[in-house]
Amino acid sequence: MMKTTCTILAMAIWMPASLAFSPTSLTSRLPLSSFDFSLNAENGLNGLEEKKRVMVLGGDGFCGWPTSLYLSDRGHDVMIVDNLSRRKIDLDLGCDSLTPIASPETRVQAWKEVSGKEIQFHNVDVAKEYDLLVQLIKDFQPDSIVHFAEQRAAPYSMKTSKTKRYTVDNNVSGSNNLCCAVIDAEIDAHIVHLGTMGVYGYGTSGGEIPEGYIDVILPGGRESNILHPAYPGSVYHATKCLDALLWQFYQKNDQLRITDLHQGIVWGTNTPQTVLDERLVNRFDYDGDYGTVLNRFLMQGAMGVPLTVYGTGGQTRGFIHISDTARCIEIAINNPPAKGDRVEIFNQIAETRRVRDIAEMVAKLTGVEANFIPNPRQEAAENELDVSNRKFCNLGLDPITLDTGLFDEVTEIVKKYKHRCDPKKILPASFWNKKRAEECATLDPNSIELKDKEAVEP
Amino acid sequence: MMKTTCTILAMAIWMPASLAFSPTSLTSRLPLSSFDFSLNAENGLNGLEEKKRVMVLGGDGFCGWPTSLYLSDRGHDVMIVDNLSRRKIDLDLGCDSLTPIASPETRVQAWKEVSGKEIQFHNVDVAKEYDLLVQLIKDFQPDSIVHFAEQRAAPYSMKTSKTKRYTVDNNVSGSNNLCCAVIDAEIDAHIVHLGTMGVYGYGTSGGEIPEGYIDVILPGGRESNILHPAYPGSVYHATKCLDALLWQFYQKNDQLRITDLHQGIVWGTNTPQTVLDERLVNRFDYDGDYGTVLNRFLMQGAMGVPLTVYGTGGQTRGFIHISDTARCIEIAINNPPAKGDRVEIFNQIAETRRVRDIAEMVAKLTGVEANFIPNPRQEAAENELDVSNRKFCNLGLDPITLDTGLFDEVTEIVKKYKHRCDPKKILPASFWNKKRAEECATLDPNSIELKDKEAVEP
Repeated sequence: MMKTTCTILAMAIWMPASLAFSPTSLTSRLPLSSFDFSLNAENGLNGLEEKKRVMVLGGDGFCGWPTSLYLSDRGHDVMIVDNLSRRKIDLDLGCDSLTPIASPETRVQAWKEVSGKEIQFHNVDVAKEYDLLVQLIKDFQPDSIVHFAEQRAAPYSMKTSKTKRYTVDNNVSGSNNLCCAVIDAEIDAHIVHLGTMGVYGYGTSGGEIPEGYIDVILPGGRESNILHPAYPGSVYHATKCLDALLWQFYQKNDQLRITDLHQGIVWGTNTPQTVLDERLVNRFDYDGDYGTVLNRFLMQGAMGVPLTVYGTGGQTRGFIHISDTARCIEIAINNPPAKGDRVEIFNQIAETRRVRDIAEMVAKLTGVEANFIPNPRQEAAENELDVSNRKFCNLGLDPITLDTGLFDEVTEIVKKYKHRCDPKKILPASFWNKKRAEECATLDPNSIELKDKEAVEP
Repeated sequence: MMKTTCTILAMAIWMPASLAFSPTSLTSRLPLSSFDFSLNAENGLNGLEEKKRVMVLGGDGFCGWPTSLYLSDRGHDVMIVDNLSRRKIDLDLGCDSLTPIASPETRVQAWKEVSGKEIQFHNVDVAKEYDLLVQLIKDFQPDSIVHFAEQRAAPYSMKTSKTKRYTVDNNVSGSNNLCCAVIDAEIDAHIVHLGTMGVYGYGTSGGEIPEGYIDVILPGGRESNILHPAYPGSVYHATKCLDALLWQFYQKNDQLRITDLHQGIVWGTNTPQTVLDERLVNRFDYDGDYGTVLNRFLMQGAMGVPLTVYGTGGQTRGFIHISDTARCIEIAINNPPAKGDRVEIFNQIAETRRVRDIAEMVAKLTGVEANFIPNPRQEAAENELDVSNRKFCNLGLDPITLDTGLFDEVTEIVKKYKHRCDPKKILPASFWNKKRAEECATLDPNSIELKDKEAVEP
């Protein structure tokens, strides 16, 4: 297993729009290497880079919101398009973000107050309101369209046939609509799509997972470089594989310019922008469906709840900090493929880690124990993972790696809002198939008690 | 280029249910090798094969209807599920089947009169009416579900953003719904899906196109056998590639038993069953969107209209006769993969031919000229094609190959119904992209005149 950090000179420049609203403990805790507070030019761009008009589909979500703020902060013109599906799913699940997120209208208003910058917000369903999507593209004339507008939780996608079907319908229709809309609008916008490392499967590449395309020798000895075989482990991951084929087709047929970012598991909560005002706080999911593994552990550690490690915890996965998600998006925007080039694919991860090693780190830090529970997922119990992320590193990314200092950011957020936690939502609530559901039958959601019980009763 | 016919002993047994209703000219014209009128057992099965309960999704369509009749004729219990989308699209296009097809209710009534056998018909939208689909599966308890319920014309799928979006939404949702429904119904039904040779792309395999999976050597020298890389040439073909990934996922996660049939271009109209009564006639599409290439040529030849060859006609494609479609389906049904086996994939073609060679055959036969018109499609002008169809041959298929004798069947149908032809629908009406549309701008739908003009004015 290779740790895939890279230490090439960081070109990304952090510049919180205003330091007047409490520069916050986060900024001082992020590794210095990823910061540079030198102000250059009023728009935050360093003069070498172009100001872009960027539509962010799904810009209200966990990755979309901090990315939108970051891009705005950097001087780009940002329009958010989001149908608030993530918030609505929370209603269905009886869950809520641990952090009290403001409405999108309040968010963009707060951002204007803090930064002086405008972000447009449009409540449009990309998968269903096609004509509105085309009109927005025609009106806004984006240089880039960042596409986060997909149902993004593997467990939720495996919960019931209803959620499987929603995930496929929403994600595939959304991506197809986007391609059609760019063609119909006759705007040569660069599409930047959030994919997932999960498209590759784990351990099927014969070595290091390359970035999107893999060299193979076909029968007869012919060498070829093909789209990496898809081997998704959930309906959610499958939709990203379906997307990849749509990108390939529309690039070939219509010469769309497309970048697909195969992202690892995101951790962290806030970024230098979201901490500038409480109304800008990012969402934080701790439940079994939407909580990502490291964030769940950090939350459980802070709450004094045993860490829920699935199976042996032998799964090795790619990880990336939420701040780097935003930085990678800007790098992708600034490096579009040329017209006619095949789909550009980057692996968007900082490093790979084994789940039980992460659990151990968090356990040490917090003093809580790891609880190895039956695995709700149909997956290999143990896997190695070796991933290339050279492209982003070569373009200047100096990624944030797992750092117990940065863990404090999450821990502090959790402690601040622990009264909002519903411990019944912590255990896994989605099972990959009947067999896995049966194996997990002993898990009792009501068995989880927080260390400080009173904290959960506001 | 290899002709891929195979001459292994034919095991499929043709047995029109009743010869009382005019055994017809068709049956006598089909090659003897594909016929055997010996009656054995009242249900038409030869005693070695099992009677199955078969749902046919899309059983009202060009392939679905003759397949349903064939399976019923062979003694299986057949239920057709169809939302009549193909008929409704004709309304939108202002087209109609050249043959006057009866309503589904009349069709199954006629079949009962002719054969004494019942086929159930349910008007259900597989892509949208999920709960009804689940209920039908629970009620019918099928052994096999044949899935034709997809928008199946590449040109229609490329016509407008609306038809691109419909094709993706309908086809992907339908396939995903089917998997979910089989899981929800808790019925271990074998899914038999009609895919397409177009999933492979043309000329990307480094040699003979294998059946579904291809041997590759991965970096580091590791040998692997992977799903053949997808390289679709239209939105329609792309949906079949998306389907393939869904099959792969649900097989892996839920142990569904699935067979994917990558079919070539179908030609012919009627089968020994559809000729038994005029109310059973199969549909025949001659328009630029839904007419398949050989059928279009045969129709144009019979009408005295120059053959519309796209580009140089250098495209090599796989072909199969409509009667063999039905026979292949039964072979697939009788040879399901075992529980836990990966998706079974067959190439469902009889032979490969170059389009201009087919045009030449038809031109010679009919005396009309080939008209090489600009290609509405974004595709390679010329390609070789070498395809394995060994699996079906090994299971007893003795495929019908292009035979000018069989051409007469189509020609007679066309002559019989030529008064129903609208010559304005003959030229291509869908263009793969703006460039192709511009290249085809000179094509004037009104320029096509039938040899016998009066025939089109009823």
